[in-house]
Amino acid sequence: MKIKVINPNTTWSMTEKIGAAARAVASPGTEIVAVSPSMGPVSIEGFHDEAFAAIGVIDEVRKGEAEGCDGYVIACFGDPGLAAAREVASGPVVGIAEAAMHAASLIGTGFSIVSMLERSRMTMEHLVQAYGMEHRCRSIRMTDIPVLGLEEEGSNAQAHVIEACRQAIEEDHADCVLLGCGGMSDLMRRVSAEIGAPAIDGVSAGVKFVEALVGLGLGTAKRQGFARPLVKEYTGALAGFAPT
Amino acid sequence: MKIKVINPNTTWSMTEKIGAAARAVASPGTEIVAVSPSMGPVSIEGFHDEAFAAIGVIDEVRKGEAEGCDGYVIACFGDPGLAAAREVASGPVVGIAEAAMHAASLIGTGFSIVSMLERSRMTMEHLVQAYGMEHRCRSIRMTDIPVLGLEEEGSNAQAHVIEACRQAIEEDHADCVLLGCGGMSDLMRRVSAEIGAPAIDGVSAGVKFVEALVGLGLGTAKRQGFARPLVKEYTGALAGFAPT
Amino acid sequence: MKIKVINPNTTWSMTEKIGAAARAVASPGTEIVAVSPSMGPVSIEGFHDEAFAAIGVIDEVRKGEAEGCDGYVIACFGDPGLAAAREVASGPVVGIAEAAMHAASLIGTGFSIVSMLERSRMTMEHLVQAYGMEHRCRSIRMTDIPVLGLEEEGSNAQAHVIEACRQAIEEDHADCVLLGCGGMSDLMRRVSAEIGAPAIDGVSAGVKFVEALVGLGLGTAKRQGFARPLVKEYTGALAGFAPT
Amino acid sequence: MKIKVINPNTTWSMTEKIGAAARAVASPGTEIVAVSPSMGPVSIEGFHDEAFAAIGVIDEVRKGEAEGCDGYVIACFGDPGLAAAREVASGPVVGIAEAAMHAASLIGTGFSIVSMLERSRMTMEHLVQAYGMEHRCRSIRMTDIPVLGLEEEGSNAQAHVIEACRQAIEEDHADCVLLGCGGMSDLMRRVSAEIGAPAIDGVSAGVKFVEALVGLGLGTAKRQGFARPLVKEYTGALAGFAPT
Amino acid sequence: MKIKVINPNTTWSMTEKIGAAARAVASPGTEIVAVSPSMGPVSIEGFHDEAFAAIGVIDEVRKGEAEGCDGYVIACFGDPGLAAAREVASGPVVGIAEAAMHAASLIGTGFSIVSMLERSRMTMEHLVQAYGMEHRCRSIRMTDIPVLGLEEEGSNAQAHVIEACRQAIEEDHADCVLLGCGGMSDLMRRVSAEIGAPAIDGVSAGVKFVEALVGLGLGTAKRQGFARPLVKEYTGALAGFAPT
Amino acid sequence: MKIKVINPNTTWSMTEKIGAAARAVASPGTEIVAVSPSMGPVSIEGFHDEAFAAIGVIDEVRKGEAEGCDGYVIACFGDPGLAAAREVASGPVVGIAEAAMHAASLIGTGFSIVSMLERSRMTMEHLVQAYGMEHRCRSIRMTDIPVLGLEEEGSNAQAHVIEACRQAIEEDHADCVLLGCGGMSDLMRRVSAEIGAPAIDGVSAGVKFVEALVGLGLGTAKRQGFARPLVKEYTGALAGFAPT
Repeated sequence: MKIKVINPNTTWSMTEKIGAAARAVASPGTEIVAVSPSMGPVSIEGFHDEAFAAIGVIDEVRKGEAEGCDGYVIACFGDPGLAAAREVASGPVVGIAEAAMHAASLIGTGFSIVSMLERSRMTMEHLVQAYGMEHRCRSIRMTDIPVLGLEEEGSNAQAHVIEACRQAIEEDHADCVLLGCGGMSDLMRRVSAEIGAPAIDGVSAGVKFVEALVGLGLGTAKRQGFARPLVKEYTGALAGFAPT
Repeated sequence: MKIKVINPNTTWSMTEKIGAAARAVASPGTEIVAVSPSMGPVSIEGFHDEAFAAIGVIDEVRKGEAEGCDGYVIACFGDPGLAAAREVASGPVVGIAEAAMHAASLIGTGFSIVSMLERSRMTMEHLVQAYGMEHRCRSIRMTDIPVLGLEEEGSNAQAHVIEACRQAIEEDHADCVLLGCGGMSDLMRRVSAEIGAPAIDGVSAGVKFVEALVGLGLGTAKRQGFARPLVKEYTGALAGFAPT
Repeated sequence: MKIKVINPNTTWSMTEKIGAAARAVASPGTEIVAVSPSMGPVSIEGFHDEAFAAIGVIDEVRKGEAEGCDGYVIACFGDPGLAAAREVASGPVVGIAEAAMHAASLIGTGFSIVSMLERSRMTMEHLVQAYGMEHRCRSIRMTDIPVLGLEEEGSNAQAHVIEACRQAIEEDHADCVLLGCGGMSDLMRRVSAEIGAPAIDGVSAGVKFVEALVGLGLGTAKRQGFARPLVKEYTGALAGFAPT
Repeated sequence: MKIKVINPNTTWSMTEKIGAAARAVASPGTEIVAVSPSMGPVSIEGFHDEAFAAIGVIDEVRKGEAEGCDGYVIACFGDPGLAAAREVASGPVVGIAEAAMHAASLIGTGFSIVSMLERSRMTMEHLVQAYGMEHRCRSIRMTDIPVLGLEEEGSNAQAHVIEACRQAIEEDHADCVLLGCGGMSDLMRRVSAEIGAPAIDGVSAGVKFVEALVGLGLGTAKRQGFARPLVKEYTGALAGFAPT
Repeated sequence: MKIKVINPNTTWSMTEKIGAAARAVASPGTEIVAVSPSMGPVSIEGFHDEAFAAIGVIDEVRKGEAEGCDGYVIACFGDPGLAAAREVASGPVVGIAEAAMHAASLIGTGFSIVSMLERSRMTMEHLVQAYGMEHRCRSIRMTDIPVLGLEEEGSNAQAHVIEACRQAIEEDHADCVLLGCGGMSDLMRRVSAEIGAPAIDGVSAGVKFVEALVGLGLGTAKRQGFARPLVKEYTGALAGFAPT
Repeated sequence: MKIKVINPNTTWSMTEKIGAAARAVASPGTEIVAVSPSMGPVSIEGFHDEAFAAIGVIDEVRKGEAEGCDGYVIACFGDPGLAAAREVASGPVVGIAEAAMHAASLIGTGFSIVSMLERSRMTMEHLVQAYGMEHRCRSIRMTDIPVLGLEEEGSNAQAHVIEACRQAIEEDHADCVLLGCGGMSDLMRRVSAEIGAPAIDGVSAGVKFVEALVGLGLGTAKRQGFARPLVKEYTGALAGFAPT
């Protein structure tokens, strides 16, 4: 089975970290292809970044179909481009926010999300609502650290994240925490050990859920909203992205 | 006041119709600039089309800021790119689905949406939920006519739309109908007359709501999720879209 | 266009303030008629006051129909009598709580309401729910100042309101605030300037939304719950209010 | 114990029927006082009628406090004036829509409401939502019979109501029905027998719930929204209703 | 009328307290039979305890049917076995959490629950949601006292409970409190007096609601989910519990 | 990895079918132990059956902990005993209704449930709500076939189920169907082929999700509601089930 893990931003140091997390949990027969798109924002911190990151995600799924990929993980906690990617893919496509929330709902009574810039709070809230997780989400704690702060050596970003996770467990009645950024995918075991409760990395969860769905013979449903894009003309600078 | 009405698809016959509808309701001092983006899908029928249409919408808002636009209307009933456009704009940005639903909620007890392809039902449902209109939405009737069917001369698309509107009023307990496509913006008065109940065109409603907000001195709030895009690098084919 | 702005309480100093706020935003061709009913409570602070204020509101709308009014604004943040007034009116009727919430939802990611006596909290909550704004409302801050405290010269009521608005922005993740009382309609620009975020006065918003709806040719929908009151007998002291 | 059952309309033939239903279920020590207000609409079919009926309801509760009433039932299925009446009363006040829904939720898995004019559908829906009964309400069937049609001898209104109740049970997965009008209070046992499932009359249920609450020593809570009306001036024709 | 009040745990000192509370509010003609099952957990503090307590509850209802009981109260604030008990019973079955919440919603604007171990929070939340009380529940305060702590002489458990009730009223905008454990049923009047607001004991409320329903001639609805258990074989150690 | 698949009823022909379905999708290193409890109902059709089935489920999980099981699947579409089983287990426990709904939400826009007796409709609805799937569930179609009807040779139960699945796809806007009974676990591929859309068997999905969670190193969260049962006495016939 070949799973493409797409880091929607174009910072390859993060892509490598994400790829390593994916490989660490993949089953023996699973090949992980971890990529960033060939274009787009170096980090995703708001709706504008998300809109452009979605283009890169779709492009990678389109290429993945030609490469024989069986499924996809979108490795940014805003799940950018998820619905459009599902139209393009035959196999399953799973976002890491989605994967983390579903995993949490299968093991605990309530989760907290720990994530980055305050400005992305609304994205988190919107996903919680869209995925039907309002009764499970105990709190959303934004650390107000920029995404790339996680990549800087010597930064205390990780310490701040761990502290926020601890507060979620101790103050918000959560019994597990979601690591709300692809760039935290190396922290799953460390956070879990430090807070004494499950910490869930969506990249890892996404890989295992795609494996599960492919193992069930399930691809994306094609009868309604995720039917293949209709063949039509796209114009101008976007002409090359027209569905064929 | 200068309002840019953006038809997110690149079919200019529809853009002209939309512009005419906008001008028909604009106040004396309001200048309407009706455009299609320079790039993107010729019609929007699914999540893939929406993702690419969003790029064109954002680009037009970016240009609009330089052109001195006071506000924007996004004239596709899926409101593509709305959140990202709000990050870019100083003034208000209103989507036509949003505008139509808000207008309906101010004049009636329950509305129905009449729109195009069945595959877009989930988009409609998602917007109804996101805008808090679940208690007001009586039904969503998809006619399964392609968007560009409305542009074809001699087609009976309009008759089908009107019939669906009539059914919504007579069978679904709705007291007004929303015309669920920018391409229906010429039908507001005709439908209303034929069904004996208000028919709401989102383009018209969007223009009046932008006028209202600008008249109130209100622009897009910049303290949280709609703060300006952070300045950062975008790479590859999308490099030119990086926020500056 | 003639818009009647009804201050549901009978304190005319407040009515004048409300009228001034309405005129300050009205379009050139709009005539504002600001009135208090000829009867009813001098301030509205609870359900009992609201029930009696509703009678005055209905009476003013009934008279307004004879006076050729094109639309109505109900200028109390509990929107008393709104549904009944819609039965009576041909044109649109908008409440200021409703107007403020809709305006906020078009420009920001989340609003807070700042209002008066703690005992009215449930009214605010009920309106938030009824208007589908639960996902947008960040907090409701009651200052516990009586309504008429805003009218007293030398009082520090305004300072308390502004402080509560500031807290909403800084502590509750709101990006705009709603001024939760008709008596605050003179504070819109001052609060906005002091807190560095949009402050929305429902009176002003109500006027612009009624202008917008009338401009769209939309009146109140008459097919379902807002159909004209059935002609019937009312008895005793209320006989004169019977629908005719 | 003295319970005042207030028929909010002024049609005394209905008041007598309601009083009889109340007495039929009252406990030995309970005195039922069944009244119509001295003023107001002869039937309640819309928001306008409700607004005026509320005045009469409040007035009867005010008088009831002086008369030593221990609790109140508001015997119209729109529960007009309920919140305001609670401010005035020391003891409990229960509306018949409220009572019927709570009773249904204690004995079955889902109820249907069978009521009168189509135009009142929104009132029913609003109450279902306000009382938290959305997951319990299987359907709302409006028979489109005027309220006073139930009072006409020789009318087939009762047969229509019973037929709608039967359809609710057989087609809508309901296991009990609510008789959605005070004027149906004589039908509880007959409908129940004919449909082979519980039919719930809110008047009867209201009386038993008030008895229960008084028996528990519970009156209306006075710390928040149902605190006594503040003493203040009311002006004009409503001056006599000012809280004292 | 004979009402069986079932304390689902097997601590008879608590059963006696519960029986006394039930008798204190029962109407003259009502016989209270207060029992613990012949088997099961000595206290109920989690889902495991609840699952086994449900067996005892069902067994007592089964026996109660043979004993001529007219209705049942399940006297544990998690309402264990409620749905299954309703299948077995002809008359009404009411849980004390359910009874307390319904009573609170008839007298106030918002309640708080004060209960025992933190680990049961999710049970409380689930019931609030299942009973449609999310808009009425102001807070859930778990005191983290074990259930049997209430039975220990000289313990300060009662003082802690009262303090939590006071905080609910003063800090959480509640206007009444629910005593969230059958073992608090002796505290209703004392708490109420100390906090100056209604305190509701579900045992007392449950008895009065069962009296009310029986007085209305209403038993459990038998057309849908609460139909009698189908006759079938149960095997092994549970063979004796098979429906007959 | 050792996964115990528990058929909560005691009909071993169904258990074998369920075991076969589980083994058909299990990964190479996964051992499936398919069992029925040693006690309990032969089929589960209502709340009474569920309550007793839960005891058997808990007992099997308790034994499974001693047997070294890494995770559990509860193979009845009502997910009986799920929360209690989670208290007992170290590893993950997944119900098949839960698993099927989560899988559906990862591949499609909306699902329908096809299940057995009408009387279990409320259980389905309750699970849809509890799992946050209300926006995803298009319809619940009960075929009114008894559970053991699926086991009878020569019965046309399977044909009825397939027909209901087809109707869900063609009439209810669903793009996938959930097989709403453990006894349908052999139908996944056949239904899928006949309706041209994904059919999801919860047993298969449950096995893959447990594999995924164990592969992630995630067990049941133990900080809140799923903490181990407190050690305490159980009395009478249930004494042997006391937590130790």
